[in-house]
Amino acid sequence: MADCIFCKIAKKQISSDIVYEDKKILAFLDNRPASLGHTLVVPKTHAETLDKLDEDSLKSLILSVQKVSKAISKFSQGYNVIQNNKEVAGQIVHHIHFHVVPRNDGDGIRWNRPNPVFSEKEIKNVIEKIKSNLNL
Amino acid sequence: MADCIFCKIAKKQISSDIVYEDKKILAFLDNRPASLGHTLVVPKTHAETLDKLDEDSLKSLILSVQKVSKAISKFSQGYNVIQNNKEVAGQIVHHIHFHVVPRNDGDGIRWNRPNPVFSEKEIKNVIEKIKSNLNL
Repeated sequence: MADCIFCKIAKKQISSDIVYEDKKILAFLDNRPASLGHTLVVPKTHAETLDKLDEDSLKSLILSVQKVSKAISKFSQGYNVIQNNKEVAGQIVHHIHFHVVPRNDGDGIRWNRPNPVFSEKEIKNVIEKIKSNLNL
Repeated sequence: MADCIFCKIAKKQISSDIVYEDKKILAFLDNRPASLGHTLVVPKTHAETLDKLDEDSLKSLILSVQKVSKAISKFSQGYNVIQNNKEVAGQIVHHIHFHVVPRNDGDGIRWNRPNPVFSEKEIKNVIEKIKSNLNL
């Protein structure tokens, strides 16, 4: 996509701190890292969100996420793999990307989640809603 | 693994709110959801973290995550896909799982991340550290 910054990075029209590359995938450091080594893994082909990516690209993408994760696991105590879809979920660049975030004690990263309580009926309804939308 | 709660759920020794199942994968509602429809997707085979999972299971896992994501995208404004590795990263059950978290305006979910600044030398060093640990 002409106006997509990650397409431009993938085409080397914009430089980045590349840590891994193959025919289909590029991995580079986030320029606003949450921790040292925070890496973004992107397919070179454009898709906005996980639900829109073709299966072959998705398989290549997750295997590359695993490669980067293995490397990061060698020098950190743990790591998060995060993938945000749509602005409401924190997606800023509209080209699918996985974050691999190295984690260590005292790094100050926190996932603030509420603990809402739902009724049995709400839970039953959402199970049916997911199942009926799976299109199996 | 004998003591693993997700192995027990996968074997139906413990009941769960199942939304999807195939030979290799089970997806069920998180029992402490961050939002309505918050789903966990797990491989039936045991592995602790992403870096430890065999490639075939990983491909099946991400394709199932995509299936659930497609369904959830039909009735939410967005969604997060999150996978935590090791306690320092928020992993509670030591059996790899992807969270698929439906997101909507005002849901109160927030990812608090610091914005540390690193020197050029630190960045150069971590790029080399990742590259040298990729084992390509």
